[in-house]
Order: sequence, then C-alpha cells, then structure tokens
Amino acid sequence: MPLFGTFCVIGPGLIGSSVLRRLRAHPGLVDRLVVADRDPAVLERIRDLDLGDIVTEDMQKAVEDADCVMLCVPVGAIAPVAAAILPHMKPGAILTDVGSTRRSVVEALTPHLRDDIAYVPAHPMAGTEHSGPDAGFATLFEDRWCLLTPSGDAPQASIDRIANFWRAMGARIRIMDPDHHDTICAMVSHLPHLIAFTICGTADTLAEDMRAEVLDFAASGFRDFTRIAASDPTMWRDIFLNNSDALLSVLDRFSQDAAAMAEAIRKGDEKTIVETISRGRRIRRSLIENRQA
Amino acid sequence: MPLFGTFCVIGPGLIGSSVLRRLRAHPGLVDRLVVADRDPAVLERIRDLDLGDIVTEDMQKAVEDADCVMLCVPVGAIAPVAAAILPHMKPGAILTDVGSTRRSVVEALTPHLRDDIAYVPAHPMAGTEHSGPDAGFATLFEDRWCLLTPSGDAPQASIDRIANFWRAMGARIRIMDPDHHDTICAMVSHLPHLIAFTICGTADTLAEDMRAEVLDFAASGFRDFTRIAASDPTMWRDIFLNNSDALLSVLDRFSQDAAAMAEAIRKGDEKTIVETISRGRRIRRSLIENRQA
Repeated sequence: MPLFGTFCVIGPGLIGSSVLRRLRAHPGLVDRLVVADRDPAVLERIRDLDLGDIVTEDMQKAVEDADCVMLCVPVGAIAPVAAAILPHMKPGAILTDVGSTRRSVVEALTPHLRDDIAYVPAHPMAGTEHSGPDAGFATLFEDRWCLLTPSGDAPQASIDRIANFWRAMGARIRIMDPDHHDTICAMVSHLPHLIAFTICGTADTLAEDMRAEVLDFAASGFRDFTRIAASDPTMWRDIFLNNSDALLSVLDRFSQDAAAMAEAIRKGDEKTIVETISRGRRIRRSLIENRQA
Repeated sequence: MPLFGTFCVIGPGLIGSSVLRRLRAHPGLVDRLVVADRDPAVLERIRDLDLGDIVTEDMQKAVEDADCVMLCVPVGAIAPVAAAILPHMKPGAILTDVGSTRRSVVEALTPHLRDDIAYVPAHPMAGTEHSGPDAGFATLFEDRWCLLTPSGDAPQASIDRIANFWRAMGARIRIMDPDHHDTICAMVSHLPHLIAFTICGTADTLAEDMRAEVLDFAASGFRDFTRIAASDPTMWRDIFLNNSDALLSVLDRFSQDAAAMAEAIRKGDEKTIVETISRGRRIRRSLIENRQA
C-alpha cells in the first residue's frame, strides 16, 4: 500500500531531488512521480537522472492529479507558488513544503488555503553546502530531524501521513508550534549561517596582500566557517528575510555576548574568558551525548 | 646525520606529543628525546606511550644537554618558562616554541635571551579540538603551514635548522613578521574561535526548555561551531589575552559587518544580503583553489 498515489515535487533542488532519489530507491512508497520546475535546465537534469515519471514546466497541470504536492522552492517562493497551484489541486489532496522558516510562510499562505486541502508544513533539518538537482542523495534525511508545524485546522490523518512519509525518508519527527520552530532554527542554523557569511566578508575587506594570506593560512576554524558559507544565496536571503524577527533577536543576544567577551579580553578578565570557553565545551559535551555531533 | 643530537620538549600536549610521535616514527631525526612537564600525570602518560628517552619534572636538568629546546606550553607560559630555563641551556643551542601568538610573547621573552642561544619562534597551524598527550598523532602537521617569525638577530643557520625540522614534521614553511602573523591568525583562527565560544554561550542562556531543544536540533551549522568550541580553555584564554590588539581589531570589524547585515535584514535590503552571502561563496571557492578546504 503506497503512502501516496501520485506524488508531486515542485522545485527539485538539493532537498527535492533527495526526496525523489529516496522514492526511486524504495519503489512502492508512491505510485507515480510528477516533477515541476520553472527552469528548463533543472527539468532536463531531472529527466537525465530519471527522477520523475512526468516532468513538466506546467505547475498547474503537474498538481491536478497529485495526492500530495511538496513545495521544495526557496522560502520566499512558497506562498506565491502555493497561491498559483492551490486552485488546481484535487479535493482531499495534501499540500506540504520543506521550508526552513514557518511563521511568515504560514501567514502568507493561509489566505490561499482551501477547506478541502490539508496543509502540513514540514522542515527536514538536513542539507549540505551544495545546491541543485545534482547535489541530492537518497540518504540525506537519515537520522535527521523533520519538524512538522501543522495548524490546529489540519486533520490528524493528514499530519500522520506526512509524518509517515518523512519516516520513510529516514527522518525522526517532532511536531511543534511555528514560533517555537523559528526561534530554535534561528539559534541553531540561521545565526551560524549569518555569522559564517559575515566573517567571510570581513576577511574579504582586509588589505589585498592580507587577503591572499588569509586564504593561504585558513586554519581549521576559518575552514569550517567557509564550508557553511558556501550555501545558496537565494535560499539564505529568503530564510533571513522570512525569519527576521527571531534571527535579529538571537543575533542581538549574540552581539551582546561578543561585546562582553571583547570587554573581558580588553580588561584581561581571565575568569570571564575561561567561563565563556568552558560553556562552549559543556554544550559540545551535551551535543555528543545527544549523538548529534 | 640527525637534525639535532638531544631534543627537548617542554609541555607535551597535543602539539608536543605529536612532535614526539613523529620523531619516534622517523628514527634518526634526533638522537635523544628529553621530555619535561610540571604535571606528573602528563609525564606518566609520556612514559606509558614511550615518547621520551628521559622524562623528568626537572626543567632545568631537562634542558642542560639539549641542542634544541621546544616550548609547547600555553602561550602565557612561554616567557616565564623560557626565563627559567635559559640560564641552564648550553651555548649554541636553539630555543623554539609553538605559540599561536607572537608579538606579546617575543616582547616578554626578549629580555631573557642570551647572545649564545638563538631563539626561532614557530607556529605550526595545526590542531584538533582535543588536548593532552593522548590527543597527539604523528601526521598532525602534514601539509599544514608552519609560520616562522625570527627576529633580525637570529642566525640564518638556526632559522634553517628549525625550518628543516618542521619540514621533517611534514609541514610547509613561511617566514614572516610577528605583527603580520598576529593579524593573519586573529582573522583565520582566533576570531572564529572567539565567535564559536560565544555562540555556545548564547545558546546556553536561552530559556531552559529552549536550550534542551537547541541541543536536540543542532543543525550542521551549529555542530561545526561547537566542534571548534570544544578546544582547551587555558590555551585559548592565553591566545586571546596575548593577541588582544589584533583580535579586538578584527572582532570590531566583524561586529560592524554583522550590524550592517542585521540592518539589511531589518530593512529587507535584498541586494546587500545576497552580496554578503555571495562573498562567502567566493572566499570558499578561493580556499578550494588553494587546496586548504
């Protein structure tokens, strides 16, 4: 018994193509794969990789027979694309997405929802610094969290189907409130990315001769930062703009903590410095105990 | 022909024990290994690991026959330990270290130098988040940079011997001015570490229920930061305090860049956001071309 008859992915980049690969690797999870994108080059790759039974630029046609439509477009495109396809979806179908931010997406999308279509937003916390349909792989979601943030209106049966779908992708499921989701992700993912992008910019503004040497001597600290910083600009622009409240709040907190650390270094306050470093080690140990490191 | 007859390591932690392991793995580079530390537990481990021919708590005795003494103690201990051992070193011997900061160490150490002892500071840019004599390994320095910052007084022959020593460790050599060294390292290593320690502290001050979830959901961004943050507190306290000018200067620059990014997000200034992210990608590409990533 398949999870869905016809399953439609719109925007098959790193996440979407990983879902498609997983579905191809485990035949029987769905009956038929429909893939849509506005970019013909992306669709060409999807055809070459044989990741869809129907591959089309026509989003409205793509969704009309789908039992589940999964939007894998950048966060800023979720609501507009949803608005365009919702009138063409069939009654009883489920709409889901894979967006990294929730509150603003839900607010923008809600006015377009239909009573006969369940919307169950999901955020698989997985990814690499690579993007596009060639970057995906079938095991991307294994043992990673997938956070579901359904509204109170969503039928339990639809929530269960999306949860089971992500379990079939290999993920672990947690259901939470959209605002709570946004604060957690601002702290564990969006702020680290903002910092990584920023520090690369800081290095880039060093004098010409210095910059060359920064590249020569990038120690492990900087290397890890730049790995994060290699991510897709459009995707992260949308995440920052769509989670600005939670992100600016944790950034403000971080900036105060960094200023306090600077003051401790300026004053030679060894106790504060050692305490700050030791907290890092404690958090690290907790992560290892949680088997996330 | 060995590089040195008697070679003495003081403070065999991650770096020092890696040097010792490399020397054991390549017999003939030196004739005899002398290892000293003030901590009997460390010396016990060095004996168990068979990393020294003579292992002693007596630093003055340890150095008296050495042709080269390498200080692998934390940055803040380099000058005091050097002051204590220099009167006991034999004429013509070389004093070196592995400190991550240069200007303040050189300033503190210079008054204690002798005309008949060459001081050739070296900074192998290698390490892991682990510390202590058990954390070392013989290949730690392979293909990593080792930055030499000798003063104008150091004889070229002594500089060449230390350069050849580090080449035998597997490292690539660059010679530069101490101030230049300190700015480069502030940017590529000390600032990223300061940020990593700080962001862990920021996460740690979230409300109790949030913090537990931060640990549960630590995405790859936060994971990379905490790996860096697991490093040794004493070592990093000393680095921050001994490179405070260069570090506070790049931190200030970074804070301004982060504030500009926050302002762009607040205003919805897509152009600035995308430019900042794209710079990160450019830097990343340069790193890959330099084969450091």
